[in-house]
Amino acid sequence: MSFEENIRKVVPYTPGEQPQRKVIKLNTNECPYAPSPKVFNALEKFDASFLRKYPDPACTGLVNAIADYYGRDPEEVFVGVGSDDVLSMCFLTFFAGKKPVIFPNITYSFYEVWADVYRIPYKTIPLKENFDLDENDYFIENGGVVIANPNAPTGVAEPLEKIEKIVKENQDSIVIVDEAYIDFGGETALPLIDKYENIIITRTMSKSRAMAGMRIGYAFGPKKLIKYLNDVKFSVNSYTMNMPALIAGEEAVLDKEYFEEIRDKVVATRERSKTELKRLGFSFRDSMTNFIFAKHEKASAKMIFEKLKENDIYVRYFNKPVINEYLRISIGTDEEMDELFKVLEKILAEI
Amino acid sequence: MSFEENIRKVVPYTPGEQPQRKVIKLNTNECPYAPSPKVFNALEKFDASFLRKYPDPACTGLVNAIADYYGRDPEEVFVGVGSDDVLSMCFLTFFAGKKPVIFPNITYSFYEVWADVYRIPYKTIPLKENFDLDENDYFIENGGVVIANPNAPTGVAEPLEKIEKIVKENQDSIVIVDEAYIDFGGETALPLIDKYENIIITRTMSKSRAMAGMRIGYAFGPKKLIKYLNDVKFSVNSYTMNMPALIAGEEAVLDKEYFEEIRDKVVATRERSKTELKRLGFSFRDSMTNFIFAKHEKASAKMIFEKLKENDIYVRYFNKPVINEYLRISIGTDEEMDELFKVLEKILAEI
Repeated sequence: MSFEENIRKVVPYTPGEQPQRKVIKLNTNECPYAPSPKVFNALEKFDASFLRKYPDPACTGLVNAIADYYGRDPEEVFVGVGSDDVLSMCFLTFFAGKKPVIFPNITYSFYEVWADVYRIPYKTIPLKENFDLDENDYFIENGGVVIANPNAPTGVAEPLEKIEKIVKENQDSIVIVDEAYIDFGGETALPLIDKYENIIITRTMSKSRAMAGMRIGYAFGPKKLIKYLNDVKFSVNSYTMNMPALIAGEEAVLDKEYFEEIRDKVVATRERSKTELKRLGFSFRDSMTNFIFAKHEKASAKMIFEKLKENDIYVRYFNKPVINEYLRISIGTDEEMDELFKVLEKILAEI
Repeated sequence: MSFEENIRKVVPYTPGEQPQRKVIKLNTNECPYAPSPKVFNALEKFDASFLRKYPDPACTGLVNAIADYYGRDPEEVFVGVGSDDVLSMCFLTFFAGKKPVIFPNITYSFYEVWADVYRIPYKTIPLKENFDLDENDYFIENGGVVIANPNAPTGVAEPLEKIEKIVKENQDSIVIVDEAYIDFGGETALPLIDKYENIIITRTMSKSRAMAGMRIGYAFGPKKLIKYLNDVKFSVNSYTMNMPALIAGEEAVLDKEYFEEIRDKVVATRERSKTELKRLGFSFRDSMTNFIFAKHEKASAKMIFEKLKENDIYVRYFNKPVINEYLRISIGTDEEMDELFKVLEKILAEI
């Protein structure tokens, strides 16, 4: 006997590299623009003497701002330390049964990690070869369902009808719809929370709100499910959101105009990038996110990934079955993308 | 069958009230003084445009600062969103066995909540009537041990020899020593991590570093255990600490002079408060923390708690067996404590 037997052993998720040097960083789907000027202003005005006290455990201001913005009841809103924290809490709360939770084989790879750390049985369902999802594959016995829409890393947005069918056919399970990228395209499942009791929708401020460094995620769901989620959250950590996150989050949500401005810029750059990447010999599904998941007709993804890195351009490469010929390229500024295309042109000319 | 069967149902921890009105707040053991001026300065200088990127997942600057300050190796340091997050991760990581985890019946009431949410079997061990701990009670078969030292809400600090005996006699389990209050008195178990493989020590910046609102906790342990803890943490959320927490934490740790100044002030006020509370008819064990856990010779704790609240003075009352005749009074400023004594004098004169 030794204490080793009591230890939960896991293989953790590997996040994209965060190089400390100045590079063109297109590997973690961050926003290339700064957060709202209102965030700057709120943080500048923040009086650090308040820090001696605990923050509001109910996150009232932030929850109300999100509820207002999306026209929901505050009791239908949950907030956490990025959508990773929100999703982790959802796995812990809603997937405590014995049947396997199901999700696509190609999707956010953290789902498997949460299932593993919380000892949740799971089963992955293969996407079609073109990365489309067949909703009929999800009409099987399960202990829960997770669908990222638009999906990562594929960038594919599924029509709302497919999502609704999955929710409708699985009323004995909770269906989590991970909408981390929904602001960049696709149709939100938000209205479904008025029709179904078994849906949770998760979101993040790390991408479209340009606040990855502040760690804010949120979820929508029927009041009853949000209550269950909060009970578990308050059983893990009473105060997850610190004061700067609470005030910055509130400001970021409320600045609709700035949000739309930077989102539109990212979408415009994405559309232009599609043309450029096609010209360079890449193919990809039509991305509705802030990244493009692309495969080259001649050059290997691993080779391009490494050569780009030598040129101080970081993109994401997953050395995994099915997707190891793809690169996930986050949408940067126009200037960053132009530099990417220039370097890609050079690399590809040499093969 | 319904999704209810898949839901983890729990009774969450209830934190002390966080009234939004201006009151004398002596109910959550916060520091009555502001954080270090270096924290103010770092936050003022912080460029919010960095927020668009993810923070450093390894929390390198903060981990190194803590390691330096305490003369440890960075690989012996773990950081989290308050010591609640650190303790929660410890429960999840180190108590995955089948035998019951043991801790005192009167201690931080979150231990039971974490055991419950993670479905960890546990057993509470009664303290002696005077709130002392008998180390011999912990020489039994178990899946882990948790000891808060100094203990909360009793305020009692146990000698290091007792702690060491518990660690030594339990080398097949992990022993967590929760040192949330150690800066105010008592002897740290930190040197034991050089002697034993099975000890984890947790700390917080919420009390002695005056940063409850920033949510920063940390742990020390042998490198191997810190690695296990990080593996689980990276399986839950890659980026738990946001940028403001990382920079503020680093500054707070490094400002030794200011830390010692405010700690000494709290300790001086605590010692004076002991005299005053005795004069008013309260009795208590000699507190080594930033609160006093006191019982009145004539008046009921519940009555005093309620009357104080009517006078806008918040202290903590636990309506639980054994301790329902006690009040936990956090140490405020001298002025706040004087107001407390004045109001107590009035309340007690009326009984």
